[in-house]
Amino acid sequence: MADNHATAHPPVRFETHPDRYIHWNLAFDGPVARLSMDVKEEKGLRPGYPLKLNSYDLGVDIELADALQRIRFEHPEVKAVVVTSLKDRIFCSGANIYMLGSSTHGFKVNFCKFTNETRLYLEEMSAESGIPSLCALNGTASGGGYELAIACDDIVLADDGSSAVSFPEAPLLAVLPGTGGLTRLVDKRKIRRDLADAFSTIAEGVRGKRAVEWGLVDEAPPKAKFDEVVKRHVEALVAKSKRRPGKAITLAPLGEYKHVSVDLDAKTRVATITMKAPADKAPASADDLAKLGSSAWCIQAWRELDDALLDLRFNQPNIGVVALKTTGNADNVLAWDAFLAKNKEDGLVRETILLMKRVLKRLDMTAKSFFALAEPGSCFVGSLLELALAADRFYMKDDPDAEVSVQASPMNAGLLPMGNGLSRLSTRFLADPSLVGRVLEAGKMDTQAAVKAGLVTFAPDDIDWDDEIRIAFEERAAMSPDAMTGMEANLRFAGPETLETKIFARLSAWQNWIFQRPNAVGEKGALTLYGKPERPEFNWQRT
Amino acid sequence: MADNHATAHPPVRFETHPDRYIHWNLAFDGPVARLSMDVKEEKGLRPGYPLKLNSYDLGVDIELADALQRIRFEHPEVKAVVVTSLKDRIFCSGANIYMLGSSTHGFKVNFCKFTNETRLYLEEMSAESGIPSLCALNGTASGGGYELAIACDDIVLADDGSSAVSFPEAPLLAVLPGTGGLTRLVDKRKIRRDLADAFSTIAEGVRGKRAVEWGLVDEAPPKAKFDEVVKRHVEALVAKSKRRPGKAITLAPLGEYKHVSVDLDAKTRVATITMKAPADKAPASADDLAKLGSSAWCIQAWRELDDALLDLRFNQPNIGVVALKTTGNADNVLAWDAFLAKNKEDGLVRETILLMKRVLKRLDMTAKSFFALAEPGSCFVGSLLELALAADRFYMKDDPDAEVSVQASPMNAGLLPMGNGLSRLSTRFLADPSLVGRVLEAGKMDTQAAVKAGLVTFAPDDIDWDDEIRIAFEERAAMSPDAMTGMEANLRFAGPETLETKIFARLSAWQNWIFQRPNAVGEKGALTLYGKPERPEFNWQRT
Repeated sequence: MADNHATAHPPVRFETHPDRYIHWNLAFDGPVARLSMDVKEEKGLRPGYPLKLNSYDLGVDIELADALQRIRFEHPEVKAVVVTSLKDRIFCSGANIYMLGSSTHGFKVNFCKFTNETRLYLEEMSAESGIPSLCALNGTASGGGYELAIACDDIVLADDGSSAVSFPEAPLLAVLPGTGGLTRLVDKRKIRRDLADAFSTIAEGVRGKRAVEWGLVDEAPPKAKFDEVVKRHVEALVAKSKRRPGKAITLAPLGEYKHVSVDLDAKTRVATITMKAPADKAPASADDLAKLGSSAWCIQAWRELDDALLDLRFNQPNIGVVALKTTGNADNVLAWDAFLAKNKEDGLVRETILLMKRVLKRLDMTAKSFFALAEPGSCFVGSLLELALAADRFYMKDDPDAEVSVQASPMNAGLLPMGNGLSRLSTRFLADPSLVGRVLEAGKMDTQAAVKAGLVTFAPDDIDWDDEIRIAFEERAAMSPDAMTGMEANLRFAGPETLETKIFARLSAWQNWIFQRPNAVGEKGALTLYGKPERPEFNWQRT
Repeated sequence: MADNHATAHPPVRFETHPDRYIHWNLAFDGPVARLSMDVKEEKGLRPGYPLKLNSYDLGVDIELADALQRIRFEHPEVKAVVVTSLKDRIFCSGANIYMLGSSTHGFKVNFCKFTNETRLYLEEMSAESGIPSLCALNGTASGGGYELAIACDDIVLADDGSSAVSFPEAPLLAVLPGTGGLTRLVDKRKIRRDLADAFSTIAEGVRGKRAVEWGLVDEAPPKAKFDEVVKRHVEALVAKSKRRPGKAITLAPLGEYKHVSVDLDAKTRVATITMKAPADKAPASADDLAKLGSSAWCIQAWRELDDALLDLRFNQPNIGVVALKTTGNADNVLAWDAFLAKNKEDGLVRETILLMKRVLKRLDMTAKSFFALAEPGSCFVGSLLELALAADRFYMKDDPDAEVSVQASPMNAGLLPMGNGLSRLSTRFLADPSLVGRVLEAGKMDTQAAVKAGLVTFAPDDIDWDDEIRIAFEERAAMSPDAMTGMEANLRFAGPETLETKIFARLSAWQNWIFQRPNAVGEKGALTLYGKPERPEFNWQRT
């Protein structure tokens, strides 16, 4: 099957640095960071599709994600971000169609997921870090380009008679604006559904005054006044910023993983991720953390986990099940957690906690089955207990001869919420919220206590452990990957839905469906034939 | 393509009557209705699949939907429903696999949607009509069988050493429990996600005490005490029933439509549904309504619309766009609406309003594009205004020579909520809730006033009307049916998500995706090979 060629490309790497950016210019002017898109046509991540008109591929988005992370950690002075383009008359024409048309189904799905995560990071910067953003549309924003714009707080569009905002995906490509666009239209900007319907079917888009009337942009000044209006919006954003003061640190290259190890077993299709507790004492103050810089456990370890998860998604498609393990000194984890919780109002500490939160959400959104395994020597406590709570199942060994224990910390009490807005403990105990407090206050729990507390799925004893675990992994790995992906997407996020869960569950699920339909990707499909002389041919049946 | 054979079968008809039920026995004992499943193997709706072990196809569910409707209208004395089986040791083994395996993609999707609607009707009966339900599992409930059980308020399972509840879809068929099952596990019964994960992958299911411990059933008495425990549960449900008193009426056969007309144009793939205002004066009292019986406009007209929508879904797959029109005396609609709103505490009137609500939700959930058209002589007022609010777009003619008007009634103020729990006006005006009150209080509005009020998408004048409408329908019908289905599913339901919207948007969208994946429906897929000696072969890539 076509998907089996997914790994024919060199593996995708997610680390970069502003010095190496190809497609973005990141500049700073006091409290304002300016992110300007200037995509190099010939520098696509993979060969075969020139990135014309500021269209993007995964490589462009990897740089955007890196830039946002650096603004958070390296630039505590920044209080607003301006996203704009260095190209004349075009802001961004969206995801590159030829890239999409030539990608496997799996790559398309993972590409969309990553771009969605990055757009949500922009919104989290505004909501949680006090760094709102403005999109200065000095030219047309179409498709994913407009989706990037509506991820910003404010949008200013030049009213020059030609610049438009548009979602041409449905009319031209028979797919959806899949990077959160449809959800953001009606749920974030709260645009009337009938106007959203019209907008999403007008390939050429909407300009100037009408774009303002429909709520698609916030202001559309004439070209001559564009810079002045953008300046006014940016000043207002800076004024309303609630960014907390904190020291800057530099995000050093990850290098070889120090706190995370990944074992891949191609035969069983099982990966084992082991996360190590910190070996050092926790910092005494936020200033101490700043001195440690990005090598501090609470930054380095979670950046490594993030990188490992992205590697699993993009470069290890055949891995079906991931064993999550922890090792090291549980007291050290609890000490680092206590430090973080105590100093959470400091800017740098806050960014550290938000990083951990995003990495755990990346895990929630990864289409692999996760089984966490607690054995003697493990340290599923506090922030590392979140790994067990994020897992589809948690196996804890009931060993009379060796202590196995788990313990909560203040980090489990809401500082690391899921996409649904609830902590993992609250999501787990929707049926009886009093159990949340009981776990938080229980202190160290052995296996029997953890079972009673509702934390453990299965607790085989030392005699059965090896066989039970082996069989559980074998059975899981033998099930249909698609059924597991769909099942997990439905079981992991009980409780309230948010913009974020709507984007990943509703919009993405529909897009995944459409990404398989012959009307889009068949021989005569619109995505396949885009840019070619033939017209697409549709099967007209509505489903 | 395979889907083009969907209409080779005789059209599906949705009308039935207890006298003609093949698969269900409906019995009444004072305040208790007893619905017993006894599926006739050889009486499937289509040939080729024996309905063994109380497995079901669409025909079985059409009878269930009819039974629920009749309990509402014909049996105001009923205060609880017992759902059980007449077969020994088996309650229901779910949707018939051979039926699913031999169905087109479109039929599978529409079948699941209809079964989901019927399950939700059971829950609405409990929440809105005061008719809670108990599932008496005198044998195993698997797949859709257990999904039917968890749509009931209470579940009693016989602990006889063999009866189990199970979701074998993922492990055996590589698809999801798609009739709301996964959502109801974690969101309705609030079962812990890790236990839900384990349960959904154990093909043989869970029995007795463990089923109670995991929250899968409410009680699991030994066989000898089963009847006694069921009786106790039923008595408790009857005691808590808040059913409002009201007169019984008989639901007569629909016969030829009197208030709804449907025009199909195979060439343009456009259907026109015209709904007529009542010709008669509104009843003076609930007793008067009971005298009119099911021929009353507020029952007959909406039952006709329901039937027409189901016909479009199942029997007219090539229709892409539906024009919604109204005609007749607007004052009569307002008078009937006023009657309904005034008498909403009466049991019969309440059921009538709930019927209208369900039909409008059926429209919201129908995968066709709806454009409502207001011209001179139309009567988009009150309950009929909901058609325009449910439509993807509302075109209103701006005619200087002939009056075109719209008007709200108390029926638009929350009595006909969408699946998201909000009225269509509230969903439309999420950005500015004050507009809801303004529309409700505005009285009669001409086109210009309706445009200002935010009700109208486009208001062409009499010179442009014909061309604009023709082009709008042509353009819509020319777009990819799949892209339109996905787009509408994302734009129609802004605002809060509920169990219901989660089932239709999240669970169903994933199931639709899986229903296309080779791992399920390919030549070597699990659904295709079910019951055959070959083992399925999976592409192991996780997406």
